Amino acid sequence: MIKERDNNLKINYPHNEIVKTRWSDNDIYGHVNNVIYYSYFDTVINNYLIKHAGFDIEKSAVIGIVVETKCRFKQSVSYPEDIEVGLKISKIGNSSVRYELAVFRAGQDEEAACGYFVHVFVDRVTRKPVRVPDEILSALLPLLGKQ
Amino acid sequence: MIKERDNNLKINYPHNEIVKTRWSDNDIYGHVNNVIYYSYFDTVINNYLIKHAGFDIEKSAVIGIVVETKCRFKQSVSYPEDIEVGLKISKIGNSSVRYELAVFRAGQDEEAACGYFVHVFVDRVTRKPVRVPDEILSALLPLLGKQ
Amino acid sequence: MIKERDNNLKINYPHNEIVKTRWSDNDIYGHVNNVIYYSYFDTVINNYLIKHAGFDIEKSAVIGIVVETKCRFKQSVSYPEDIEVGLKISKIGNSSVRYELAVFRAGQDEEAACGYFVHVFVDRVTRKPVRVPDEILSALLPLLGKQ
Amino acid sequence: MIKERDNNLKINYPHNEIVKTRWSDNDIYGHVNNVIYYSYFDTVINNYLIKHAGFDIEKSAVIGIVVETKCRFKQSVSYPEDIEVGLKISKIGNSSVRYELAVFRAGQDEEAACGYFVHVFVDRVTRKPVRVPDEILSALLPLLGKQ
Repeated sequence: MIKERDNNLKINYPHNEIVKTRWSDNDIYGHVNNVIYYSYFDTVINNYLIKHAGFDIEKSAVIGIVVETKCRFKQSVSYPEDIEVGLKISKIGNSSVRYELAVFRAGQDEEAACGYFVHVFVDRVTRKPVRVPDEILSALLPLLGKQ
Repeated sequence: MIKERDNNLKINYPHNEIVKTRWSDNDIYGHVNNVIYYSYFDTVINNYLIKHAGFDIEKSAVIGIVVETKCRFKQSVSYPEDIEVGLKISKIGNSSVRYELAVFRAGQDEEAACGYFVHVFVDRVTRKPVRVPDEILSALLPLLGKQ
Repeated sequence: MIKERDNNLKINYPHNEIVKTRWSDNDIYGHVNNVIYYSYFDTVINNYLIKHAGFDIEKSAVIGIVVETKCRFKQSVSYPEDIEVGLKISKIGNSSVRYELAVFRAGQDEEAACGYFVHVFVDRVTRKPVRVPDEILSALLPLLGKQ
Repeated sequence: MIKERDNNLKINYPHNEIVKTRWSDNDIYGHVNNVIYYSYFDTVINNYLIKHAGFDIEKSAVIGIVVETKCRFKQSVSYPEDIEVGLKISKIGNSSVRYELAVFRAGQDEEAACGYFVHVFVDRVTRKPVRVPDEILSALLPLLGKQ
């Protein structure tokens, strides 16, 4: 049995990317605004698809539409600190993929925040769901977390 | 028994506020970016606290920290359309409040998106959780949805 | 001769639109971040083109590309206050339009901020400059400020 | 005599910083929205002050308030490309500093965009202008561009 605490560690995320915070990420309370975490998630997922799955945001025939997102905020982060975003995948369906993401402060192994993103892949023109393209599937399989 | 579909209707949200979309809300796919919905939610909740609960974002001794948010995106919305955001409350704890929110397109009674926000009220200086202040409690009670 | 002070008054802007500030507009210093003013400007200009010039951001054959913007910040504004944005036009060229904009706090006649935006109209596909379309020209002429 | 074209080169900016674009930086036309450039500028300036001038956005007694900004957009940039932002200083007054900034695409020496930012340094509490603090002055002097 996996204890929840184990899921919170950076080691459980097969892909990591450093995100540079921006001045405007902080809100009036001096911490990165809750909304901005989703922007980090969106960027890290798309970066991965672009670099590893041949995804082209302008031209690919199939695009990922976001149908559900969630985030739990455990510890605040603030500009100007750099953070690391961990990415793994918990589920691949016919046309959908559920990514699990976490934010780590520099030098910390425990999550400061964690959440998920669900993409449904659709035809760019008709916006109808399609099977997850093979090139994307191959790129995502290595991110399937140990269950 | 309440069918889930019933929960999706505007009539189930005791408070509604019109939100004007902005040019920059749309992303490259021509629809309001998933991240922006949370910005709508944040604004509508704080607007309510400011107008109805005497909340002052600069001076109130107690502030609401966001600890968890979620959103499901059912139907896209796009700048320049105006939208309506519905707000109700599903749970009030000792120091926390869970708000349920939904986005409605003009003239539609069914949700285009729905989600929740959980605030934990903390002391502005120590950032330690405190009881939900009475003035906030009184203002929020009318938003408790029919269970 | 027009004194500069006269230019600062709301009465000199033929078009006005109320903009609702958002929680995330404020930065850590408690005021609307300088960046956000340009978002207000962008939105008010596009709103005008959409409502009065038949502009369709998805389909119009000609789109406005921003080539230069400027803003002077005289007095801070802050969420949750509503502001008014004034719009006039100082110059219409073959393919370009220079809009002058100003931010007014509720009940104030003097600018809290002022700036300009220069659009060059281009073909949506080739992105080559084209003459300002007649429908846009007709809609913009009433905004030419008294020189 | 310095030709304007010379000013456009990366070599004329004594400080450079790589900025990673984000998914949400692109607008509906597929390019980084004009508004976002100012966010890059704001971040690069503050990063410099934090790293080289001991500036603390939470605690420093003196803070920089933005009083004027401008940007010219010459060539579009788009997520997911990384860009480089160049920074130099054209003028240091008693309480104000004018920074000149430029955006460079990877591998390009000519500006894709250029602009300026004017900070007035004020007391954090009273918000009254003060002399540019010595520690900031020392850090900024090396950025004074060749005139």
